[in-house]
Amino acid sequence: MATENALIDGALRNWHSNMDRVGRFFRSLSDDDLQKEIAPGKNRLIYIWGHLSATNDRMIPLLGFGERRYPELDLIFISQPDRAVPHNFAGEAIGDMWGQLGDLLWSEFAKLTPAEWLDRHQAVSPEDFEREPHRNRYAILLGRTTHLAYHLGQAILVKR
Amino acid sequence: MATENALIDGALRNWHSNMDRVGRFFRSLSDDDLQKEIAPGKNRLIYIWGHLSATNDRMIPLLGFGERRYPELDLIFISQPDRAVPHNFAGEAIGDMWGQLGDLLWSEFAKLTPAEWLDRHQAVSPEDFEREPHRNRYAILLGRTTHLAYHLGQAILVKR
Repeated sequence: MATENALIDGALRNWHSNMDRVGRFFRSLSDDDLQKEIAPGKNRLIYIWGHLSATNDRMIPLLGFGERRYPELDLIFISQPDRAVPHNFAGEAIGDMWGQLGDLLWSEFAKLTPAEWLDRHQAVSPEDFEREPHRNRYAILLGRTTHLAYHLGQAILVKR
Repeated sequence: MATENALIDGALRNWHSNMDRVGRFFRSLSDDDLQKEIAPGKNRLIYIWGHLSATNDRMIPLLGFGERRYPELDLIFISQPDRAVPHNFAGEAIGDMWGQLGDLLWSEFAKLTPAEWLDRHQAVSPEDFEREPHRNRYAILLGRTTHLAYHLGQAILVKR
């Protein structure tokens, strides 16, 4: 049991460290900064922060933690590319959601036992999970951590 | 034991998936493509691929798997920024190292028991590890996986 918990602790530390880096980076920016593109013609910073917030929101039902808080984010930040859907989100509004979602996920993570981490996530059917037991909550945690890092690497290209 | 192995399996799958994405992306590029910058004035693709290769090479001693294979990469791709040290590495040469290092690490990973994953890595002293047991091999695996994703997110900004 100590071994299991230490392995989960490692993954949680990696999640937390990336969440922290993303949050500190975006919170340091002005609304003008957030309108900048990561590269010519590519996503703006505000889009990336909204996209990562929406992704975190989607983790709530995916991991069985309850209802989504901000499903309206999807249309703007997930299902459409940047600039396709006009919106008025400023950094402060995204920052509030970011903080709330981060707290919620972190407190739910802490309640899971190792066996619960290895339970299926909600996007895989019981039948498919029988054949593919690696499609569990832990895989979502690891995959969403690399997703944070993937977009952080892009965002950081914008110097203020 | 089943739980421990399933958790490690999850982290290994995440590593492998990111290694695979990085390898496929860079191998699809010509030497001309590899000279492109990820954004104006930023690293060239060849530098990022060399940097990730050097990072993988450094994992060999860090995880106790033996001697480095390509320590000469550090001067060009780690300790100095892009363009500081002239070099003649073409995509094929980096690709060969990339493949060899990936195979070596993957075969060494497979030999480790859960307890060995939780052993200290070689950049932390036994005394420090006593106080900070999370500085283990597993943390390196997780951290290097997010490092791959971080730079993949940047590299992918370059359309051919």
